[in-house]
Amino acid sequence: MATTSARLQAGSRPGGRSARVRAAVHRAVQELLTDEGAEPLTIPVVAARAGVHATTVYRRWGSVGDLLADVTTSRFSGDIVVPDTGSLRGDLERYACDLAKDLSDPDTLALVRATIGTGGEQGAAACRGERQQQLEAMLDRERARGNEPPSLERTTDAVLAPLYYRAVFTDQPLTPEWARTLISTLLPA
Amino acid sequence: MATTSARLQAGSRPGGRSARVRAAVHRAVQELLTDEGAEPLTIPVVAARAGVHATTVYRRWGSVGDLLADVTTSRFSGDIVVPDTGSLRGDLERYACDLAKDLSDPDTLALVRATIGTGGEQGAAACRGERQQQLEAMLDRERARGNEPPSLERTTDAVLAPLYYRAVFTDQPLTPEWARTLISTLLPA
Repeated sequence: MATTSARLQAGSRPGGRSARVRAAVHRAVQELLTDEGAEPLTIPVVAARAGVHATTVYRRWGSVGDLLADVTTSRFSGDIVVPDTGSLRGDLERYACDLAKDLSDPDTLALVRATIGTGGEQGAAACRGERQQQLEAMLDRERARGNEPPSLERTTDAVLAPLYYRAVFTDQPLTPEWARTLISTLLPA
Repeated sequence: MATTSARLQAGSRPGGRSARVRAAVHRAVQELLTDEGAEPLTIPVVAARAGVHATTVYRRWGSVGDLLADVTTSRFSGDIVVPDTGSLRGDLERYACDLAKDLSDPDTLALVRATIGTGGEQGAAACRGERQQQLEAMLDRERARGNEPPSLERTTDAVLAPLYYRAVFTDQPLTPEWARTLISTLLPA
């Protein structure tokens, strides 16, 4: 893997120095998290890997927790397009399978775990990302079809929770077959 | 709060030096995790707080991940007695309310988040603790009563997953009322 510092120093592309610093720092975080046996993630370690001054990172992100939350938010931004298959069952099945795939990615999982590890609601919110809004969009569409879908709370407990729990707290695979059983339990035929 | 080093140095109680070191290090981890704005948890920081040599901690636990997994395992050991109310519904309701209370404790939650944050299956296993076996014991008892309970996988998805997800990934309270709805969804009347 090319070092991010080399990429940063080459930086004559458009986008501005600020955007290049952000990209280099985000890449450095992800690389350090997936390195076997890397030292604990600290601002100086990230800065060194990214080829920027630690003060630059402190000024922009303040703490490792803020930085990880930003990387996670960026990682989850637009990762899943809310499906529109014509039925709530179809939408939720597609969504659950997409999220299962997303959370099965070792880089994503390492990032989610590290972000949770810095504690606090900010990291938790970054890990939830837009999930509630995405579920609500599918439930709203079902209401617009004249049907009464399960509540957002019930859908969160039945779909989001098992996907995150299995990814983060177990070593079991998030197969599409299993993800679909979550929907058939929520919406019995 | 009394410093753990004072407690360790006082150590003339029975149990042996090894047990006292373990207790002091475990306490130091929990104190550091609940300190506002504490520095990142490292072996030297834990050792200093516990009043022991860092080499002692390295020799015994190897890494922060190993240490956190040990503290979490110890924290969850015997925390919940598997209820025996005479019915699966009663057992699971009591269990879900107990686990909700357990996971709502800020010290426990800080420990679970930090342990997940060190990554890997060892920390995840420590956070799961004996939950699968506890559920299985209640399901087995229902089978012994001649009934066919839900599968362990279904019970995990319906009960454990929402409790852990809500505690770790959201800022919503784990109320007993909500915990009981998980059981009424799993076991419709």
